Amino acid sequence: MPAPLTLGQIVARLGGRVAGDPGTVVHQVASLEKADARHISFFTGARHREKLAATRAGALIVGADGEGETTRPRIVADNPYLYFARVSQLFNALVSQPGGVHPSAVVAKSVKLGARVSIGAGCVVGENVEIGDDSCLYPRVVIYGGCTLGKRVIAHSGVVIGADGFGIADDGGRWVKIPQIGGVRIGDDVEIGANTTIDRGALDDTVIEEGVKLDNQIQIGHNTRIGAHTAIAGCVGIAGSADIGRHCTFGGAAMILGHLRIVDHVNVSAGTFISRSILKPGTYTGIYPVDQHENWARAAAWLRRKGKQHE
Amino acid sequence: MPAPLTLGQIVARLGGRVAGDPGTVVHQVASLEKADARHISFFTGARHREKLAATRAGALIVGADGEGETTRPRIVADNPYLYFARVSQLFNALVSQPGGVHPSAVVAKSVKLGARVSIGAGCVVGENVEIGDDSCLYPRVVIYGGCTLGKRVIAHSGVVIGADGFGIADDGGRWVKIPQIGGVRIGDDVEIGANTTIDRGALDDTVIEEGVKLDNQIQIGHNTRIGAHTAIAGCVGIAGSADIGRHCTFGGAAMILGHLRIVDHVNVSAGTFISRSILKPGTYTGIYPVDQHENWARAAAWLRRKGKQHE
Amino acid sequence: MPAPLTLGQIVARLGGRVAGDPGTVVHQVASLEKADARHISFFTGARHREKLAATRAGALIVGADGEGETTRPRIVADNPYLYFARVSQLFNALVSQPGGVHPSAVVAKSVKLGARVSIGAGCVVGENVEIGDDSCLYPRVVIYGGCTLGKRVIAHSGVVIGADGFGIADDGGRWVKIPQIGGVRIGDDVEIGANTTIDRGALDDTVIEEGVKLDNQIQIGHNTRIGAHTAIAGCVGIAGSADIGRHCTFGGAAMILGHLRIVDHVNVSAGTFISRSILKPGTYTGIYPVDQHENWARAAAWLRRKGKQHE
Repeated sequence: MPAPLTLGQIVARLGGRVAGDPGTVVHQVASLEKADARHISFFTGARHREKLAATRAGALIVGADGEGETTRPRIVADNPYLYFARVSQLFNALVSQPGGVHPSAVVAKSVKLGARVSIGAGCVVGENVEIGDDSCLYPRVVIYGGCTLGKRVIAHSGVVIGADGFGIADDGGRWVKIPQIGGVRIGDDVEIGANTTIDRGALDDTVIEEGVKLDNQIQIGHNTRIGAHTAIAGCVGIAGSADIGRHCTFGGAAMILGHLRIVDHVNVSAGTFISRSILKPGTYTGIYPVDQHENWARAAAWLRRKGKQHE
Repeated sequence: MPAPLTLGQIVARLGGRVAGDPGTVVHQVASLEKADARHISFFTGARHREKLAATRAGALIVGADGEGETTRPRIVADNPYLYFARVSQLFNALVSQPGGVHPSAVVAKSVKLGARVSIGAGCVVGENVEIGDDSCLYPRVVIYGGCTLGKRVIAHSGVVIGADGFGIADDGGRWVKIPQIGGVRIGDDVEIGANTTIDRGALDDTVIEEGVKLDNQIQIGHNTRIGAHTAIAGCVGIAGSADIGRHCTFGGAAMILGHLRIVDHVNVSAGTFISRSILKPGTYTGIYPVDQHENWARAAAWLRRKGKQHE
Repeated sequence: MPAPLTLGQIVARLGGRVAGDPGTVVHQVASLEKADARHISFFTGARHREKLAATRAGALIVGADGEGETTRPRIVADNPYLYFARVSQLFNALVSQPGGVHPSAVVAKSVKLGARVSIGAGCVVGENVEIGDDSCLYPRVVIYGGCTLGKRVIAHSGVVIGADGFGIADDGGRWVKIPQIGGVRIGDDVEIGANTTIDRGALDDTVIEEGVKLDNQIQIGHNTRIGAHTAIAGCVGIAGSADIGRHCTFGGAAMILGHLRIVDHVNVSAGTFISRSILKPGTYTGIYPVDQHENWARAAAWLRRKGKQHE
């Protein structure tokens, strides 16, 4: 159980200012719907106004424009969602697993572990892997030999780091495997979602720079580089040798071809397929618009006919 | 080996009626192609007529319109495919794993297991998890702490339930993790396919209602609700806080954005991207029509030009 | 450490011819950028000319048209990329795991293992599985009972072979599970990427023929057949009962509906959705063209309007 805090204590640590009683005590964060008098919740937009009116939260985090929306004790912050994240971190640990190596984990003798590393049940860590301080592998993560993880890296269950990239050469209709002898280097503060896979490089390393956040079931091909502080939502696939910039975002199920470059500060919409380099920051989209089936069938037939017309 | 049954015994248990010798004995179900005299097979449509003519099955399950298509002993049923499913259940168990906890599984002491629960090799079940009667975890399932599974739940290998949702807040270009303190609640009779992931809620729970069927490699984001008896095919992604109705179907690789609502009885076609709420039952589609590459290139170029024209 | 080789020794084994000093000794393969005097690299196209000029590689593999591009010692080969693959195999093993069964693996007593099979930590191999000579399961592979793997099969971590296919029958709004009693048969020389899933057949077997190469996070539905020497990139989904030919290629995230047929020598582009049989060899594509978001929105709105027009 985390220690309770007053609103005054919270703003002393995190900034912002209190409106209402700074001695109000809160014990945990909660949603507007589920909060009771012991909880602090947050309000970020007019479309949640009904929930705000109905909430029983003991305190709230609001922006300047939300201050007048409630008379409950509240903290006014520049960015209430970010502030809420920081408050939640006061009450909750970032990882739910104790430190140390679970006895069922299989860790090669040559592995170098930093301080306070946590390795969950059933993890397998191969030869010459290095893992930085305060990193956490949840149960059943596999790290193949020769890969490097920075500090405060979190890898969720089912993650596989360093499996062979998809390197094959055509020999008259049969495929010849190209040994994958590069590694994977993962920077500090990277989080990797459940069942995500990051392949080792064919010759050089696959690189995930610091602060990258990867959701679940992402596939990252060999020799790809993901620039620092890029965030990638679930089910995204990035093919081999892609060079992805810093501070990019990828919506869910976006797919990126290999051997291309995306500069810094590019936002790729969910469901979008990127087939060539993007050299200018901005938001890029390519989604077939959904409709009722009959309407879709008409438009699709029309589009297909267009493809058969030689202009 | 299951005990053999006569057609008469089968209809006594499951309904329908026998045409031909009700004393015909069958030992197992089989496909039309592979069946021999010991097997019962099924015939559901005219396009399988050639296979029906060639089959050596000892007996068949047919609909009223199929009764005259064969002279072999047969059971006539309203819905032959459903009837076949029930016959197969007479001969075959729903799970292929014995009850009990495999010695290599790691199950926290605080876990509450119902009667006849089966937990396979290498599973990891976290603190305060509850699992209902007759549920089965195949090898290498991970359930994070605090999640609840109903009765008769089947989770296939590689499933991860309760990993952290993708909750991050932007702090001037760096991502701040939002602790994920909700859980996952899974109803009775839910089946979850191999390597599917269901994230825990950020604050409240992610909810999968009773009778939901999930195929392989599905990703379900935090705080999503999937309504009862909805069936979702492989490779589907559902982003966070989606509210999905009851009795829906999702074709393979459909992708659903977060924070939207889909009402009951909606069918989403395979490969379709849903970017806004669907408030009316029906079938919804959005797939780019495939064609020979040159035709596609022409139509796509045309469509792209259309986007650059200001009308 | 592999033994060093001279260029003369390499061509004696693999063919091709040496230009420059055949006594040049190389110890390992490397990329043009990372190579030093101990390495052999390769040059396959004019777009890498700058890297070629800057490389410090001790030797190179080039095509006939590349012979004059460098004065470094070099091997001239018909297909330099394929030749490079073979040279890399002289210096590097195809699998990075020693033979034998890791003590943490759970292998049923009835399993039949060929010679020199390698089974990594945490693998689970069910009843009556057969695995051919020289095959390798990396850590945490699960093979359900009754599946068969050929010789020299490589399965990467997180692979699940033989989980139940998605077989359900509608009983008035509730789903009835159809027991999945077929198996999976995998031919010789198949490689399977991390977290890929291959479901067991409903009645007959799912079949992956010899020489098929599967990348990561691929889903293969029940009763599908993949013809020999077909290569499938990451994140592809193939629904049940698809019949895929030999010598096909599938780009990343292609999606294939079930119950259809694709003949030999078909190339499906990345991101393409195949909804009907393809009976003619060739390259098939169906990708919504990406653009800046505003342009996309215009074209998509236009396309949607087209669907609502009754011609």
